[in-house]
Amino acid sequence: MTTSTAPLRIAMIGTGFMGRMHTQAWLTAPRFFDLARTPEPVLLVGRDAPATAPAAARLGWPEHSTDWRTAVDRDDIDVVDICTPGDTHAEIALAALEAGKHVLCEKPLANSVAEAQQMTDAAAAASERSGAVAMCGFSYRRTPALALARQLVAEGRIGEIRHVRAQYLQDWLADADSPHTWRLDRERAGSGALGDIGAHSIDTAQWLVGRRIAAVSAQLRTFVPTRPRRSAVEGLGGAGDDASDRLPVTVDDAAAFTARFGGGALGVFEATRMATGRRNANRIEINGDRGSIAFDFERMNELEVYDAAPDSAQGFRRVQVTEAQHPYAGAWWPAGHGLGYEHLFTHQAVDFVRAVTGGTAASPGFAEAMQVQRVLAAVEQSAAHDSILTSVEGNHA
Amino acid sequence: MTTSTAPLRIAMIGTGFMGRMHTQAWLTAPRFFDLARTPEPVLLVGRDAPATAPAAARLGWPEHSTDWRTAVDRDDIDVVDICTPGDTHAEIALAALEAGKHVLCEKPLANSVAEAQQMTDAAAAASERSGAVAMCGFSYRRTPALALARQLVAEGRIGEIRHVRAQYLQDWLADADSPHTWRLDRERAGSGALGDIGAHSIDTAQWLVGRRIAAVSAQLRTFVPTRPRRSAVEGLGGAGDDASDRLPVTVDDAAAFTARFGGGALGVFEATRMATGRRNANRIEINGDRGSIAFDFERMNELEVYDAAPDSAQGFRRVQVTEAQHPYAGAWWPAGHGLGYEHLFTHQAVDFVRAVTGGTAASPGFAEAMQVQRVLAAVEQSAAHDSILTSVEGNHA
Amino acid sequence: MTTSTAPLRIAMIGTGFMGRMHTQAWLTAPRFFDLARTPEPVLLVGRDAPATAPAAARLGWPEHSTDWRTAVDRDDIDVVDICTPGDTHAEIALAALEAGKHVLCEKPLANSVAEAQQMTDAAAAASERSGAVAMCGFSYRRTPALALARQLVAEGRIGEIRHVRAQYLQDWLADADSPHTWRLDRERAGSGALGDIGAHSIDTAQWLVGRRIAAVSAQLRTFVPTRPRRSAVEGLGGAGDDASDRLPVTVDDAAAFTARFGGGALGVFEATRMATGRRNANRIEINGDRGSIAFDFERMNELEVYDAAPDSAQGFRRVQVTEAQHPYAGAWWPAGHGLGYEHLFTHQAVDFVRAVTGGTAASPGFAEAMQVQRVLAAVEQSAAHDSILTSVEGNHA
Amino acid sequence: MTTSTAPLRIAMIGTGFMGRMHTQAWLTAPRFFDLARTPEPVLLVGRDAPATAPAAARLGWPEHSTDWRTAVDRDDIDVVDICTPGDTHAEIALAALEAGKHVLCEKPLANSVAEAQQMTDAAAAASERSGAVAMCGFSYRRTPALALARQLVAEGRIGEIRHVRAQYLQDWLADADSPHTWRLDRERAGSGALGDIGAHSIDTAQWLVGRRIAAVSAQLRTFVPTRPRRSAVEGLGGAGDDASDRLPVTVDDAAAFTARFGGGALGVFEATRMATGRRNANRIEINGDRGSIAFDFERMNELEVYDAAPDSAQGFRRVQVTEAQHPYAGAWWPAGHGLGYEHLFTHQAVDFVRAVTGGTAASPGFAEAMQVQRVLAAVEQSAAHDSILTSVEGNHA
Repeated sequence: MTTSTAPLRIAMIGTGFMGRMHTQAWLTAPRFFDLARTPEPVLLVGRDAPATAPAAARLGWPEHSTDWRTAVDRDDIDVVDICTPGDTHAEIALAALEAGKHVLCEKPLANSVAEAQQMTDAAAAASERSGAVAMCGFSYRRTPALALARQLVAEGRIGEIRHVRAQYLQDWLADADSPHTWRLDRERAGSGALGDIGAHSIDTAQWLVGRRIAAVSAQLRTFVPTRPRRSAVEGLGGAGDDASDRLPVTVDDAAAFTARFGGGALGVFEATRMATGRRNANRIEINGDRGSIAFDFERMNELEVYDAAPDSAQGFRRVQVTEAQHPYAGAWWPAGHGLGYEHLFTHQAVDFVRAVTGGTAASPGFAEAMQVQRVLAAVEQSAAHDSILTSVEGNHA
Repeated sequence: MTTSTAPLRIAMIGTGFMGRMHTQAWLTAPRFFDLARTPEPVLLVGRDAPATAPAAARLGWPEHSTDWRTAVDRDDIDVVDICTPGDTHAEIALAALEAGKHVLCEKPLANSVAEAQQMTDAAAAASERSGAVAMCGFSYRRTPALALARQLVAEGRIGEIRHVRAQYLQDWLADADSPHTWRLDRERAGSGALGDIGAHSIDTAQWLVGRRIAAVSAQLRTFVPTRPRRSAVEGLGGAGDDASDRLPVTVDDAAAFTARFGGGALGVFEATRMATGRRNANRIEINGDRGSIAFDFERMNELEVYDAAPDSAQGFRRVQVTEAQHPYAGAWWPAGHGLGYEHLFTHQAVDFVRAVTGGTAASPGFAEAMQVQRVLAAVEQSAAHDSILTSVEGNHA
Repeated sequence: MTTSTAPLRIAMIGTGFMGRMHTQAWLTAPRFFDLARTPEPVLLVGRDAPATAPAAARLGWPEHSTDWRTAVDRDDIDVVDICTPGDTHAEIALAALEAGKHVLCEKPLANSVAEAQQMTDAAAAASERSGAVAMCGFSYRRTPALALARQLVAEGRIGEIRHVRAQYLQDWLADADSPHTWRLDRERAGSGALGDIGAHSIDTAQWLVGRRIAAVSAQLRTFVPTRPRRSAVEGLGGAGDDASDRLPVTVDDAAAFTARFGGGALGVFEATRMATGRRNANRIEINGDRGSIAFDFERMNELEVYDAAPDSAQGFRRVQVTEAQHPYAGAWWPAGHGLGYEHLFTHQAVDFVRAVTGGTAASPGFAEAMQVQRVLAAVEQSAAHDSILTSVEGNHA
Repeated sequence: MTTSTAPLRIAMIGTGFMGRMHTQAWLTAPRFFDLARTPEPVLLVGRDAPATAPAAARLGWPEHSTDWRTAVDRDDIDVVDICTPGDTHAEIALAALEAGKHVLCEKPLANSVAEAQQMTDAAAAASERSGAVAMCGFSYRRTPALALARQLVAEGRIGEIRHVRAQYLQDWLADADSPHTWRLDRERAGSGALGDIGAHSIDTAQWLVGRRIAAVSAQLRTFVPTRPRRSAVEGLGGAGDDASDRLPVTVDDAAAFTARFGGGALGVFEATRMATGRRNANRIEINGDRGSIAFDFERMNELEVYDAAPDSAQGFRRVQVTEAQHPYAGAWWPAGHGLGYEHLFTHQAVDFVRAVTGGTAASPGFAEAMQVQRVLAAVEQSAAHDSILTSVEGNHA
């Protein structure tokens, strides 16, 4: 922890969807939240030079590079923000932590438990050494409705939890002829729906419940085993450009598993990118002996809350989590004027800066993110062995 | 099949919740539907005499008895309607079929696969011998919204089905101190949430999809292992009446399983009577490559339908299944004037009479109901063996 | 009031939609509710002989007639149930009351305030003379959700009421070429959407709020001034059968008005049969200084309730009004197993019998129903005079 | 119109809620949308010096002033953005237009029709003289769901429109003891719920329908005639600080009116800030002879669309207006990742810049905004004269 009030100088690796999002977050955060240090975008790192310069200009990064080591090597950089695909996280994060930087790393933490473990160890050492903060970007924790849910659970309003059901349903791969992408390649993406979106459900569930998943029993499916090469779809190709030019899908299209939480709660999880008509239904419901909560990201400004106390008018309440009294929401607009997806990232930037300046714990730190990775690994292992109930290794719930 | 137009004379065994319901159904059906033979309630059979006489008087059954064999032995009875707990179904049904009666049997068909198999064999023989109809009371098939769903699937509007997610959530056992009942006793009830309500989900799913479940991987939970004896709760007891007088719960409180359907679709099922705040959320969602449907019995007059055909205004439609063009609904009121739970049973009575008079197949016949029993058995077996993926025996999907 | 326990012998005038409904109600009521006297359908009266006999047979009325005076003249009839169009109500009701019968009269009470006043006077006299009960069929009062709403208002949980917004939206006349019916003829129907469905909103609103409407400012519209003769639509006609054979619509298609309630609350009402896509959206919302309620008949088993007491999780609760503790609902099925439109009429039959046997007030009595008629008249008068704010005559709110 | 590609230099008057919002919009717009000129915040003008400097620093305006004339007088300012209360709009806008600036003015355009007319005339003259753009901030037009609604209406998918029902319901004044604010003072605010939020409904309705309101019949209410002085509530006061220190409310708390649109459609409007439980329910529903649309800002990312074309599965579709094909949405995130309230203002900034650089018409220009003012005036006039139907002066629908 530092008591400096100097700007917090940031280098960001990655110029894609998440790069745009993080930029918006770093710039917006200090306009709406009181921060002891103001995040200052300094250096943008992209893979190829012709694209990086205009991205930096448009997004407002004064400097740019195609070598992520620049970010690590420069003394005037405080934070390295990693927005690249999962197969590059470990190398960059290890170097950045070694160099004493604070690190914000997009999820999943890594493509394997082994890498995640290395990163976790490095983060612990760096924290010890220099107070460096290492946080993983499970952004849904910053949804005001889910933050309120966690608060209600912590206050005991839901009681002892028995059921957790979480579904993350998208449909952008429902068309069997939509083109192949790197997200369907096991080498690059690590896994499919499971790691891409199922990981969010796992993190959210454990964080809300306050208990870890102890064991899982799983099935995975790949409904569409090959996809057309993008060039074939878009008619960009040359001689070999025809509809039969298809690439193999080497990850799951869908994952389903039942879970045992520490303490005995029964979990049911499902992740798919082929649930026709569901655009981004990141849903979770928790039933306890005193109440329940239910959430669907397609209506991200709402939380449904049930209180089992006797009353002639019991029922799930549709809470608009947009009030001054609600987590994060008070910094924004009057009640009922909702937030959008991007605000999760602004809240994440705020929490990251506060962890750096206030010494509060990063949420989630690398150790927590690694544990999510362990659950993913257990799911894959169970699915590969006739769904047999499989312990989450290293679990100490 | 008979071409008689004489009244269809009915004996009903059971005077409880289901008995009241079936009475209402038999009496109402001919007032709203054209039937070749009019069902005529003749004989009500109850367990104890003092209760049976007034029940018969109130419900409108001219004769009553405490011996179900009377129903089987009398020549002037055409139909035996079995509304008793599951442990008595086999004996009554076998005798009735032997006597050439048409049989309507409440679900579950039996408390074991072995009994269910016997009943199925007897039904096949009776059909062969005398054209007797044997049908099992999976009444949710008669929900207009689900009947419409099946029609849409059959027409190909949903396309090839990839996902089935079914939840049956109730909460009447959420309070750990609510009293013990026969439904919590394995001897009487066969199983808990699984057989009581999960069986409905299994039947509905297979019927809608048109494919059987081939294998399952399951977990069961009993969250509350003992319950107070009813007398203790109600303060009825004598010397031994205290709060510590608790009986063991010998069935599951909750069941969760993943499923592989014939053809490869991925199923996720959950049944519980402890989902605080969910009164009767019998839900099912099906995703195909051309569309999706979603249903929740808490809004039984609605079906949500998604069509993936390109349009600037795609989205799940809330269809009010109350129009003249919709299954069953045309017999009732103007559009938008919904039906209730009891109408499922009226529709069931109609379909039963039509199976008797028109020679259409009973839906479901005993063979189909037995297959549901096999799925239940596979779920229990998987749960008892570390959730290992377990085939549904005798499955020929 | 009578202390007899003899059956309550009923004659019903009318064999249409409402006739079927009332029959079902009279027959079902005693099977689910404890009644001091059992309603007994005796005599069905229809307009034309060839249709009346089979209707009586099917619905289960032992006797039938084509002369409503038979019902009035017979000594063995206790109740006259009037289910005919509004232009015949006064004559029948006056004769029945004169003969000492209890009378249940479908809404609207009459087609004019003058007739309604006569009926009200006659009912008061008959009550005085013989204890005859006279009730008008505003059946929505018997919706469990609305009965719960009234209870919440009466308990003060909504506080002082400021806003009432009621919409009754249907769409069965949205197609400009749907055929003409008697409901579009001022002589027969009295008025259009206003009297047909707006009358329900007015009655419900005043009953819930516990205050009368003091003045209104209104607009009416007839969007489709002529409709094809039914024979033309169905191709039944002879020489003159062509699409140009259209009859004039002499009633409103839609009505909208603002209202001042006694005490000052602001009401906004709308009734239309041309709200494309709304099948039977009978909606009402009430906002007080302590809470709010909202209801839509398309989801008749639900009531939305908001409590303004400070809490971190405020929001409208979706109450499933299907529990043992809720009005009417306890007589039926377990929680979450909803009722349908027809159950309103069963509850109405129950309340009518209890008014006859228990001496409780009919709800609504003729005086209350007449006041609704006065509001309708004020609406029409305002609409005819440039929407000028118009007092409801005889109002004593 | 200018063909310059230089930055578009902006001065903003106002540092409150709307000032923060507009700042965010000007800064965000060029990061997500292609704009021919980049908006550049230059000068922030506030009322009092001590607050303006820190606001400028935090929000990122390099220069600041307490004299709005500076903004008008400087040659290097292209745009004057007016975010002050309504009683100051006319003076600033007239001076800015006179100086050849482009003007973006928050709604309502002015506090009187006379002022609005002056501004409209000045805008027309400035446009003629220098191509200056003058636009009024009816930001709801920039909701993707409403922009899609307008597109559907324009394409004829709703058909001929018969019904418009619009409600704008908030509840922040429901507590009779919440403190007085300038918004309750007629001098400052012009009117109450009517002008504050009802104006939005009027603009949205006319814009969607493509027709103007010709006449209105209205009622206004002030339910709480006095409010505690803020200091009294917060205990800040001196000698006179007690609960009895209340100020008069000189505007309406609620407004309700029926409307006749050009072409004959029937409108029903309601605006209130006392609808307990409704945080920001800006709702509109339109029924035509081919379909319907419905919208509620509390779920701003959704549009409900009904298509009357015959189908066995008709129903309102819940369209998530978050797809690449939808208005504005394509610039942001993947489908299902919703936007928030602030994005309306970013879209407004985009459209304003495009009007300046592309010569497209401002939407709404001052003439359109003035017509909304005329409707407001007609509503107040009708309410003051026993709700008599009152023409919107100067209406040429």
